Amino acid sequence: MNIEGHVDGDVVHVGHDARQRFHDSRGYGYPLEGNDVALAPVEAAHLLARDDLAAVDGMDFRAFLRASDDPTLPVRYLVYADLRERGFYSAPSHPDWTEFARDGDDLVVYPRGSGPGDGELAYRVRVTGERTEVPARALGDCVLAVVDEESEITYLDTSRPDVAGDVDAGLPGGADADLLADRVTVWGASGESLYETGFYGTPLSGRDTGRDAVVLSLVEAAYLAAEDALDVDPAAAVARGRDVEGERFDRRLAAYRDLRAAGVAPKTGFKFGADFRTYADFQNPENVGHSERLVRVLPSGHAFAPRDLALDVRLANGVKKTMTYAVVDANGDGAASVDWLAIQRLTP
Amino acid sequence: MNIEGHVDGDVVHVGHDARQRFHDSRGYGYPLEGNDVALAPVEAAHLLARDDLAAVDGMDFRAFLRASDDPTLPVRYLVYADLRERGFYSAPSHPDWTEFARDGDDLVVYPRGSGPGDGELAYRVRVTGERTEVPARALGDCVLAVVDEESEITYLDTSRPDVAGDVDAGLPGGADADLLADRVTVWGASGESLYETGFYGTPLSGRDTGRDAVVLSLVEAAYLAAEDALDVDPAAAVARGRDVEGERFDRRLAAYRDLRAAGVAPKTGFKFGADFRTYADFQNPENVGHSERLVRVLPSGHAFAPRDLALDVRLANGVKKTMTYAVVDANGDGAASVDWLAIQRLTP
Repeated sequence: MNIEGHVDGDVVHVGHDARQRFHDSRGYGYPLEGNDVALAPVEAAHLLARDDLAAVDGMDFRAFLRASDDPTLPVRYLVYADLRERGFYSAPSHPDWTEFARDGDDLVVYPRGSGPGDGELAYRVRVTGERTEVPARALGDCVLAVVDEESEITYLDTSRPDVAGDVDAGLPGGADADLLADRVTVWGASGESLYETGFYGTPLSGRDTGRDAVVLSLVEAAYLAAEDALDVDPAAAVARGRDVEGERFDRRLAAYRDLRAAGVAPKTGFKFGADFRTYADFQNPENVGHSERLVRVLPSGHAFAPRDLALDVRLANGVKKTMTYAVVDANGDGAASVDWLAIQRLTP
Repeated sequence: MNIEGHVDGDVVHVGHDARQRFHDSRGYGYPLEGNDVALAPVEAAHLLARDDLAAVDGMDFRAFLRASDDPTLPVRYLVYADLRERGFYSAPSHPDWTEFARDGDDLVVYPRGSGPGDGELAYRVRVTGERTEVPARALGDCVLAVVDEESEITYLDTSRPDVAGDVDAGLPGGADADLLADRVTVWGASGESLYETGFYGTPLSGRDTGRDAVVLSLVEAAYLAAEDALDVDPAAAVARGRDVEGERFDRRLAAYRDLRAAGVAPKTGFKFGADFRTYADFQNPENVGHSERLVRVLPSGHAFAPRDLALDVRLANGVKKTMTYAVVDANGDGAASVDWLAIQRLTP
């Protein structure tokens, strides 16, 4: 085991029988002329740690890590080593290593039992430290591997979900309603019908009084007013919403509208620290079905602190829901487009 | 039931047999001369909603709420009515109503089965809407009742916990360590001993290599360096921490130091979206005991968004830990005082 490597630009060259020993049989590096192999720094570090490589330009594992001027090497090394320990072959997402290379990804991971030449892909992985923010737009079709301050790794699978359901309530016309502070009370049978058939609002506390009154949130009221279901001016409901929430209200209303259009009934997610929880199978208040998603609404330029992601995803997982983000691009004047992003814990 | 009330300044006066009917038998209001009673607006609204009061200056429940110029009346009414429905007598925290009045509280709540005159107190309640921030310093000996946008109420019990444990590891002197990017690697048997006896650090990934190396977080390293346990300059570890986290690092280090001084072993709370999880009964890595608390570190002027509180407390509850905040008042030059605040869900 006295094989040595030599730094050559961004890679480490290894000769001897490296091609057969490291690449062909164990999926490290890419072949050069002869039997040589080029290793990425994470690969070289891993072989040094295992004593499969004696040294790189005289450096052992410790010296090799110290000598690197790339501050991301330690976190990428930890993820690479963890994936190897879990039984995966993995490679830098770079055209020299893999046909699956894509900008922005750090590693490609092959299915257990396969390697670089087998034409299959298990995961595309982006690596980040817990203190580095990740733009929402970078997520949706990759696995985010977060290395926390104690070097533990959390894998988060990100995808673009199809948010859809079967809720389709008939709405009343111009129901009798009061805009009071930051909520709207609907009086009479229309209020009860909104609640019973569409899961809008909350029956007023003091149900024992027999009053037919339902209290709507401002986002529910602004949506229903725009549908001519309430005798409340839609502009007044939106204006009140902006008074109490600023621009966030417009984003939440856009997401709410998108959910209702998709046949999903959104209710407040407050008890879960989210904007909404959603019901795709709501029949009536006695038969609401399981709420499938927690939704947090974000502006389109949002970047996640990984710790906030960990918090959201952990909570959603604990209540058997899928953490879902509505990334809202406001086009001004009430128009907005909503991109949906789902994030779940993954054990590779 | 044709009893009417009349607005008089901040209260509603009711005559007839109001004292006996409303105050003596059901705990509303406070007695005036004769048989009259003065009601707070929440009390009058509740009696109007139940039709126990026919009108206030000709107004029914709906008109009475509309006529109020106090934007907090709807949320305070919802909490008052909810507590009544749960079987509690409750009153404004004001000296005319109760001997337990205290500035900043909204309601005093008497134990089930008792009322204003019985000299006992169940809860002191502060009411807030979900959009109103609550200063950390206002919490610690009250129940926070948060009314969300759909008028549902979440009760949060706040207290000042005694954070303490039995962890007391002997530390090595000047262990061989490298400060690399945002973590510190301790080589040799000292690293292993730090982990085994004090739960410091994480064994380096690639345990199968037989290397005795433990990776410390910067906050662990800064603490241990200040205790002369590492051959790392304490100032360098702190400077690196500030590079990557800013002033937050100093606050986290102050909380970490406080926890260690109290005999508690803190580990990262990243997977729970917190700063630390804590172990009071750590024996060794095979016998760590249950982690009792999730700790989030905050600056002393912090104000909570109620939604963030709901998120933290819900998550902590789901993993059977107590959500705990370390509120750190930096006095400059590394000195800092830490106030501990615990918050848990409450069902009154």
